[in-house]
Amino acid sequence: MHRTAAYAATSATSPLGPWSLERRDPRPGEVLIDIRYCGICHSDLHTVRGEWGPVQYPLVPGHEIVGHVAAVGGGVDRFAVGDAVGVGCFVDSCRRCDQCAAGEEQYCDRGMVATYGSIDPSTGEMTQGGYSTRITVHQDYVLRIPAGLPLDRAAPLLCAGITTWSPLRRFGLEAGDELGVVGLGGLGHMAVKFGVAMGARVTVLSTSEGKREDAMRLGAHAFEVASAPGAARRLAKRFRMILDTAAAAHDYNHYLGMLGIDGTMVLLGIPGPSPVAAASLVMGRRRLAGSLIGGIRETQEMLDFCAANGVASDIELIGAADINVAYERMLRGDVRYRFVIDASTFGG
Amino acid sequence: MHRTAAYAATSATSPLGPWSLERRDPRPGEVLIDIRYCGICHSDLHTVRGEWGPVQYPLVPGHEIVGHVAAVGGGVDRFAVGDAVGVGCFVDSCRRCDQCAAGEEQYCDRGMVATYGSIDPSTGEMTQGGYSTRITVHQDYVLRIPAGLPLDRAAPLLCAGITTWSPLRRFGLEAGDELGVVGLGGLGHMAVKFGVAMGARVTVLSTSEGKREDAMRLGAHAFEVASAPGAARRLAKRFRMILDTAAAAHDYNHYLGMLGIDGTMVLLGIPGPSPVAAASLVMGRRRLAGSLIGGIRETQEMLDFCAANGVASDIELIGAADINVAYERMLRGDVRYRFVIDASTFGG
Repeated sequence: MHRTAAYAATSATSPLGPWSLERRDPRPGEVLIDIRYCGICHSDLHTVRGEWGPVQYPLVPGHEIVGHVAAVGGGVDRFAVGDAVGVGCFVDSCRRCDQCAAGEEQYCDRGMVATYGSIDPSTGEMTQGGYSTRITVHQDYVLRIPAGLPLDRAAPLLCAGITTWSPLRRFGLEAGDELGVVGLGGLGHMAVKFGVAMGARVTVLSTSEGKREDAMRLGAHAFEVASAPGAARRLAKRFRMILDTAAAAHDYNHYLGMLGIDGTMVLLGIPGPSPVAAASLVMGRRRLAGSLIGGIRETQEMLDFCAANGVASDIELIGAADINVAYERMLRGDVRYRFVIDASTFGG
Repeated sequence: MHRTAAYAATSATSPLGPWSLERRDPRPGEVLIDIRYCGICHSDLHTVRGEWGPVQYPLVPGHEIVGHVAAVGGGVDRFAVGDAVGVGCFVDSCRRCDQCAAGEEQYCDRGMVATYGSIDPSTGEMTQGGYSTRITVHQDYVLRIPAGLPLDRAAPLLCAGITTWSPLRRFGLEAGDELGVVGLGGLGHMAVKFGVAMGARVTVLSTSEGKREDAMRLGAHAFEVASAPGAARRLAKRFRMILDTAAAAHDYNHYLGMLGIDGTMVLLGIPGPSPVAAASLVMGRRRLAGSLIGGIRETQEMLDFCAANGVASDIELIGAADINVAYERMLRGDVRYRFVIDASTFGG
């Protein structure tokens, strides 16, 4: 067992603070990881505050984990001590259902075992996440961080990265396609980078002028205030695909009208329900879809793509003591574009 | 010019009654059709009552037209006098946009010229539909009714048929797939027949027990009252595709949860807006889509498929004098499964 420093929430309303937990020695097939960095995802905040359902406290959030292998259990053949590795949103799944067999563990019939806040069937205990200095995970759920990717800027790829990468691939974005990105936050900025790297023509659809300069710096080809007078008409039928990363409830129909025939808008966040007018879909054989992170195999493909194409997250590196301030800033949209915690600041 | 007997609406609130109009001699490329049968589509009712926007009266509805070629204009090479032919929901389009080039005239950039109620750019006059004894249409927008298809039972294929056929093909239904059909009316009963003919396992999702016997007689493999206690759980993740033919507003999320991973629910009607919960889509990479009738090419494919597979509509043949009663019965869902007007009863 390894006494491990961490930051935990102790209730839905209290700030996160120092805590410690035990990480197990690696069992057969498992690796023990010394965590170097962990990104802060918007879902960390929703979860620890109980907004997505009841939570058992103390809870250590964090599922954008990067570090080095510190020890390996028996039979581990994919990783060795010292390897740079990552852990994303889940650490296990049933391994037997159709989705697991297809490498789509995020849609596991029995439900994936989330990196934090899930009961791990193999231990009966609740999983605890990456706001900590160590984690023990089966090698089948560990990613390799390719050489050349800076570890701190790689951390957000494990959630924000794969969440935007997967739908671009699954829904068939091709070079030359028009891609719209709704919202320029942690997910949106990755969607821009991936879209550009895949050769699409990327337009950021924002609610205000404030992010125009950033959008263009990130490589977007165009920036539009989607609510501006005339925007709906000017952008009508423009896009082959729209990735919608907005976290707050908003009018899908406004964006659906910007899809061309057979276009697809993919929801990546979980905003509140929004009314959909059938005509928005029927009149152009359009699709409103959703997508949930990605499987282990395609997460590795995404990481390899990032290393090959020089793609990584734009981050603001913080210490553990800044986590609560970072949450408040994240709520205000004041982050460019992902907070990443330096795990050396957890102490212990 | 050909003086032509018809039934027309003269206002949004008055019943349809006898009227007459002039049909032009076929211009180059056009055919004059002696109409034998015309189906009654739910959209006829919405349109003549002004529920889908302002309408110019008198208006002759009808876009499920079957008859025989009575005369041909110069250069007509696809049809000869006496051929059994059909006309569906549109009689022209721009012929130049990407959609027209792709044989998807229903999504024409300039808007298709609807069979009734559209301004025909080539004449400047409003089009008048199939509740009449003749119509003149360019051959490029005329379908061939294959030998072996009964003309009266073929009429509804021109709208109800293609509206259900097209999404099954476009969204890739395959033999062995689980297909759900929401609503068992004019569209729904065709969806069942096509799904069965394509080798899918078809489940009718109804709001009441009343149509169970009919559903099974039509060939469905299963019948479910979708609102019954436990139905949502029992049918969770069941379907590869759901065709939603319901005309009244309803909760899409209830059905989206019945889609498997990567499943698609296709809206074919235009009910009022309904709230969509993002989680319904995100948690299974599901799609909520829409589809609008079909192009000329695929309508012909559908008709040929029907002839080859013995598929046709279940109809109730009526005379012109029964149109208004039929509208009221249609509103009550009292039709199995499509009213078709015998055009010989228009008089004239």
